[in-house]
Amino acid sequence: MIPRYSRPEMVAVWSAETKFRIWFEIEAHACDAMADLGVIPRANAEAVWRAKDAEFDVARIDEIEAVTKHDVIAFLTHLAEIVGADEARFVHQGMTSSDVLDTTFNIQLTRAADILIADMEALLAALKRRAHEHKDTVRIGRSHGIHAEPTTMGLTFARFYAEMDRNLRRLRTARDEVATGAISGAVGTFANVDPRVEEHVCEQLGLQPEPISTQVIPRDRHAAFFATLGVVASSIENVATEIRHMQRTEVLEAEEFFSAGQKGSSAMPHKRNPVLTENLTGLARMVRSAVTPALENVALWHERDISHSSVERMIGPDATITLDFALARLTGVIDKLVVYPESMLANMNKFRGLVMSQRVLLALTQAGVSREDAYSLVQRNAMKVWEAGADFETELLADQDVRNALSEEEIREKFDLGYHTKHVDTIFARVFGN
Amino acid sequence: MIPRYSRPEMVAVWSAETKFRIWFEIEAHACDAMADLGVIPRANAEAVWRAKDAEFDVARIDEIEAVTKHDVIAFLTHLAEIVGADEARFVHQGMTSSDVLDTTFNIQLTRAADILIADMEALLAALKRRAHEHKDTVRIGRSHGIHAEPTTMGLTFARFYAEMDRNLRRLRTARDEVATGAISGAVGTFANVDPRVEEHVCEQLGLQPEPISTQVIPRDRHAAFFATLGVVASSIENVATEIRHMQRTEVLEAEEFFSAGQKGSSAMPHKRNPVLTENLTGLARMVRSAVTPALENVALWHERDISHSSVERMIGPDATITLDFALARLTGVIDKLVVYPESMLANMNKFRGLVMSQRVLLALTQAGVSREDAYSLVQRNAMKVWEAGADFETELLADQDVRNALSEEEIREKFDLGYHTKHVDTIFARVFGN
Amino acid sequence: MIPRYSRPEMVAVWSAETKFRIWFEIEAHACDAMADLGVIPRANAEAVWRAKDAEFDVARIDEIEAVTKHDVIAFLTHLAEIVGADEARFVHQGMTSSDVLDTTFNIQLTRAADILIADMEALLAALKRRAHEHKDTVRIGRSHGIHAEPTTMGLTFARFYAEMDRNLRRLRTARDEVATGAISGAVGTFANVDPRVEEHVCEQLGLQPEPISTQVIPRDRHAAFFATLGVVASSIENVATEIRHMQRTEVLEAEEFFSAGQKGSSAMPHKRNPVLTENLTGLARMVRSAVTPALENVALWHERDISHSSVERMIGPDATITLDFALARLTGVIDKLVVYPESMLANMNKFRGLVMSQRVLLALTQAGVSREDAYSLVQRNAMKVWEAGADFETELLADQDVRNALSEEEIREKFDLGYHTKHVDTIFARVFGN
Amino acid sequence: MIPRYSRPEMVAVWSAETKFRIWFEIEAHACDAMADLGVIPRANAEAVWRAKDAEFDVARIDEIEAVTKHDVIAFLTHLAEIVGADEARFVHQGMTSSDVLDTTFNIQLTRAADILIADMEALLAALKRRAHEHKDTVRIGRSHGIHAEPTTMGLTFARFYAEMDRNLRRLRTARDEVATGAISGAVGTFANVDPRVEEHVCEQLGLQPEPISTQVIPRDRHAAFFATLGVVASSIENVATEIRHMQRTEVLEAEEFFSAGQKGSSAMPHKRNPVLTENLTGLARMVRSAVTPALENVALWHERDISHSSVERMIGPDATITLDFALARLTGVIDKLVVYPESMLANMNKFRGLVMSQRVLLALTQAGVSREDAYSLVQRNAMKVWEAGADFETELLADQDVRNALSEEEIREKFDLGYHTKHVDTIFARVFGN
Repeated sequence: MIPRYSRPEMVAVWSAETKFRIWFEIEAHACDAMADLGVIPRANAEAVWRAKDAEFDVARIDEIEAVTKHDVIAFLTHLAEIVGADEARFVHQGMTSSDVLDTTFNIQLTRAADILIADMEALLAALKRRAHEHKDTVRIGRSHGIHAEPTTMGLTFARFYAEMDRNLRRLRTARDEVATGAISGAVGTFANVDPRVEEHVCEQLGLQPEPISTQVIPRDRHAAFFATLGVVASSIENVATEIRHMQRTEVLEAEEFFSAGQKGSSAMPHKRNPVLTENLTGLARMVRSAVTPALENVALWHERDISHSSVERMIGPDATITLDFALARLTGVIDKLVVYPESMLANMNKFRGLVMSQRVLLALTQAGVSREDAYSLVQRNAMKVWEAGADFETELLADQDVRNALSEEEIREKFDLGYHTKHVDTIFARVFGN
Repeated sequence: MIPRYSRPEMVAVWSAETKFRIWFEIEAHACDAMADLGVIPRANAEAVWRAKDAEFDVARIDEIEAVTKHDVIAFLTHLAEIVGADEARFVHQGMTSSDVLDTTFNIQLTRAADILIADMEALLAALKRRAHEHKDTVRIGRSHGIHAEPTTMGLTFARFYAEMDRNLRRLRTARDEVATGAISGAVGTFANVDPRVEEHVCEQLGLQPEPISTQVIPRDRHAAFFATLGVVASSIENVATEIRHMQRTEVLEAEEFFSAGQKGSSAMPHKRNPVLTENLTGLARMVRSAVTPALENVALWHERDISHSSVERMIGPDATITLDFALARLTGVIDKLVVYPESMLANMNKFRGLVMSQRVLLALTQAGVSREDAYSLVQRNAMKVWEAGADFETELLADQDVRNALSEEEIREKFDLGYHTKHVDTIFARVFGN
Repeated sequence: MIPRYSRPEMVAVWSAETKFRIWFEIEAHACDAMADLGVIPRANAEAVWRAKDAEFDVARIDEIEAVTKHDVIAFLTHLAEIVGADEARFVHQGMTSSDVLDTTFNIQLTRAADILIADMEALLAALKRRAHEHKDTVRIGRSHGIHAEPTTMGLTFARFYAEMDRNLRRLRTARDEVATGAISGAVGTFANVDPRVEEHVCEQLGLQPEPISTQVIPRDRHAAFFATLGVVASSIENVATEIRHMQRTEVLEAEEFFSAGQKGSSAMPHKRNPVLTENLTGLARMVRSAVTPALENVALWHERDISHSSVERMIGPDATITLDFALARLTGVIDKLVVYPESMLANMNKFRGLVMSQRVLLALTQAGVSREDAYSLVQRNAMKVWEAGADFETELLADQDVRNALSEEEIREKFDLGYHTKHVDTIFARVFGN
Repeated sequence: MIPRYSRPEMVAVWSAETKFRIWFEIEAHACDAMADLGVIPRANAEAVWRAKDAEFDVARIDEIEAVTKHDVIAFLTHLAEIVGADEARFVHQGMTSSDVLDTTFNIQLTRAADILIADMEALLAALKRRAHEHKDTVRIGRSHGIHAEPTTMGLTFARFYAEMDRNLRRLRTARDEVATGAISGAVGTFANVDPRVEEHVCEQLGLQPEPISTQVIPRDRHAAFFATLGVVASSIENVATEIRHMQRTEVLEAEEFFSAGQKGSSAMPHKRNPVLTENLTGLARMVRSAVTPALENVALWHERDISHSSVERMIGPDATITLDFALARLTGVIDKLVVYPESMLANMNKFRGLVMSQRVLLALTQAGVSREDAYSLVQRNAMKVWEAGADFETELLADQDVRNALSEEEIREKFDLGYHTKHVDTIFARVFGN
């Protein structure tokens, strides 16, 4: 995570202030539950809420941690400074640091997921709008980078919509994966803390109790979470790659929006570079790079070790902040993408009529020509277009073997673009519903 | 994938014979649908089914492919040899190779997922059985590899059960991700093939039609699939790591089953090594290694390129065969794991009574000692145990400052193991239901 | 590794026959050394060499291993069947399985590296030839996929040559990393085997003795080896990506060689797809996927565990066989690449003269115009070319502010291509020498 | 990178101030070279050096970049504010942003490598000292976590020394990989900037000129650099894993140094956890996570795209800062590691005498017993020790079949530890010289 690729709302999820605020809430809710159970005096539970509106002093907590080398103890010491040492003496009773740390981490991930879900919804709205705008904007479809058959720009946006819609579903599942909390004490046996404390804290904080924890919440949940971010990032790369291709000089079917004062190159003033989507390609690599360490974090030793912690201190903020930024950037790119329908037509006609070769092939076979012969007939005319710049329709009309099978009208009909777009509505209905 | 780590049922999913059989079914069902639509003659559709019980000649197909350098054309040529060139001339009409290849790949992945789901169910059964068997077998819980507080071996099995149960759910979701098919023709516009053909083929083969494809089925689906396998593999590593730790000489709380003729070491005949779980650790690394290439496969160029294909030819079989083998191996390990309850007790008592220190700490604070003072009191007695081999209970009874706060009876009560196991039933109910 | 992407010489390195042959040589040389040291009788050492020309029966060894579950013991049992049980009784004395397995693995990796080095030399030869052939073939250089300034196709080949030449050096270093052997006995103390045995065996087999082993050869060596393969694979992707771009319909500056019978598409007979370089892109992902497991293999438990073994049984053959195939395929692609110089010129002139904008910018500043003003002057004319298809030279000549700074001759001179190619010889000398 | 895991010297390498300082030096040296060549006036070159001692205003540069969206143009604008717009007008002439950015990045990586090399030398010194200190401290060697045969703690330190010494060599090679600079202008043709400018700048800054660049320095260099960091990180994990194992309660052969005020657990005051080495395990995962994105950065489009940039803005600082911190932390751990030789002996004798089984096996075969029979003899006595807690030496002395082959004296001699340590000096000489 670096400021250049960060947005404030997501950064705030990961601030020290947010973290300590959540720690406080967990401890205070736990005190309430313990008071309800008669384990600690009600007055002490109530006293803790005095810190509800206090600002926790991050520098002071760091100072204490420098001595104790233990962050939760440092926080509790500071909390006692606010609440009063005597009043605070039941805080954290029967709990371990991990109860606080793991529940907090999951709350942060859940909040991060909520932001990512909102980001994705915004991206979907942009894709949907552009899809309908360009539903009938014909462009050539390409396989292997080579012209294949006509499609429409609307279908391109629609397929990204469908992909991102799947990602929305995956993000929601990923959110559920980590929306659990644990207040189960040392090695998770609840020996020193009643399971009802966990239930109360989780309910107050919008989490499910972790069915079985071992001081730590099991890390397969987090592995699944970060793996999902990796999939979303790869989809971002997918969209970015399409736009980079569309903007390259020889294609130029679309361009990222280019603002007034922006300079494309210090040396070449005419250049408009797809720098946003290139940037997104790199950001996708970074979000993906969190997946493997998250997978390596699953196998902790016995009931817990702390090897996962340094990893999560980094990938927690890094992957979510970067992905949030990337989704927002991509939404902007889609929203403002400058589309050039004329270029699309010009490109499609680079090899005059050749993209219709499959239709002709089919027509020949349906007219009774064997598939092998039809293939040869098409190929020999196609090669003249490819190599000599001929017009495919003209060549076919002049080929006697073709004409033996197909009339002039039948040949001409094969060059109607409507043939290729006739199912666009069907596909849109599948993707967007009616 | 190598034979050493393969099981026949999963290997069969990926055989050339299986692949060609699926190709055939797709083509034959597509012909049926085209005949229903009046696009091709009914007789030709029916003729294709003549190959229903034929053995496809893999060597012959390879031979044709060596010339055409195109696998689907090679297969169709061979199919025509069986069905008759004339009868077969409408086969594959309006379709592209990818319609066949991608739908087939998804069928194979779906079948592979079914096997993995069955594997997981078998593993869950073994874990559940062992969990109940050792529900009350007390052992020391460890954080950081250091003795913490008592837990039970049943809880250890139960937490692996809960983790694998989540993995079962993830596998089912992953199966859904890839249970789609596409018969949408070049660049996915259905220009040359009616969407109803796709619907019919998918219905016959147990798939959902891909809402929008572009000649290829979008690869975010496969990325999510393989990412899930990576999570499952990491959980396998988690269980394997626990067992490796339990078997190490100084711990020896459990051992992998050691068969009669087996030799642990060519040099050291007494050795019994946890080679199965070490092997599983390595296999987990391999399954995980499929995740990144699968993520890199998402960003194809325009409507499709074929960079994903070589990756999938490898990770398709490799990751599923290896994971199938690993799940089955782990099930065997769990099923036959030799557990040593006496060793567990002996280990727990290595530092006499020390694991009860937290209970004493809590009792002191509840008796009115400040947290800081209680911490010091516990620590000074704990250190005698740690450094001089003293007995913790004896030391506490002899410490006048402790006795000022707690009676002998109160101290002795702190060393009752039942305190730590009192919520085992609660946790089991959460994990296994009632 | 799958046959489709395999070449026989590299496959042979990893065959069971090769493996057992190396095992035999290690054992036989070790016996010689032990006889020299007087540890075992000379006659027994000599007897072992009776198996020198024997074919080891892989099926028989597998059969024994099925009982012993130990591959080296199985082999030694079979060896004794050939040599005679009594004569063979000193074979492997004081050694452990790992002495044999690890030394063998390193010999296989070293041989694999030798093949990869030869592959790389062949690729370099092809790149060098094509570089000189197209040293002066002007094409447009592109940054961000956008036309920048002219370069030559020879420089493109030359930069790939320079990159692959670095990879050749890296492969040689990687070979050295793994060209060690160890015969150090259980936990590597030489307690039961004299260090001079290790020295003799290593010398006979072209290896360096591992300075300190612990039964296993340390896995940082292998991590460095596979990481190097990952770098080489990424360079292959780099070259492949360039060619895929060059072949796309709108660019078409080069094409992969297209053999006579080859069919590009089952549906679109005119298509010529860059399938080899797309395939190389996928293969690069697979070779790279070996890097992380190799890194994860480094941290073995204590003196050794066997988690690395299953990983290496797969990535050893897979990564080297795939990389060998990819290097050879890329060499073929480079060798036979069809280059279209006319297309290159046509593309360069798509935006008439615009690629010379930087030269004009410089000329203006050198004529005393401020950088800001010069930038504006260039940009306003560039935009006419970009947006209205004007000719840049013509526009500049007609722009009075430009003419105030530059004469007609000065402007016209800026459109000379020789300006951009004047240092090609210098660069070639740097890359190829003389 | 986060402050918790950062050290100031390495952080400074990556500060905005350092970056702009290097940018300035590149521009100023380039002006000198251009003045030498007569391309720009000497006075202008000299004027640039006025900024030599200036503080660049990072906020001001950010402000300009917010408008221009181009960082190098923003810097040059600010530089002109310091030097004077007229005097500065030849700065950057003929160069591109990448000339500055890529050369700067390589300087930063080179400086980072220098720090890592110094870190590694400090680690080596600590390992060497501890190795010699514990050269003869006997402990049990373990394979598969199971007792094997005796070794010494000195050999453990020595093998880590040897591994890190290889890593030192690798770091030096990695430094060379990236110690290049490029001032080759747009698409690297030197059309607008003389190659001698590059030579001068590189010489002044301690770099080699990149033989052939394409506006960017080829990224295979950086891939090799980060791959090396990944190998080093994996070795750190290797050492950390050993220490974590040694500290676990049942083993307790060593402990990380535990400072006075430090608290191991908020709940369990007696605990001393190997938190530093657990932390190092996590940090190793993070450094490794930079490898794949660095490999993915190699394949840029044509002469350059900017997808690599966001990746490098993150992994450049992150991987080097984290690795620097990890190396320093590991050096501290090694330096202050508390070693318990008595525990080592106690552990070795857990199964009384059993670790000598291989010696007995060898003695039996050398006394003429067949390998199979000797194996059985050893195993039947070993099993009594393993299962019934017998003493191996006593059992052997009482086994008549053993005594038929070996005398009492011969048996007793097999239990001498000196046998296992006799080659320690040889190995130390190999590792440390002399």
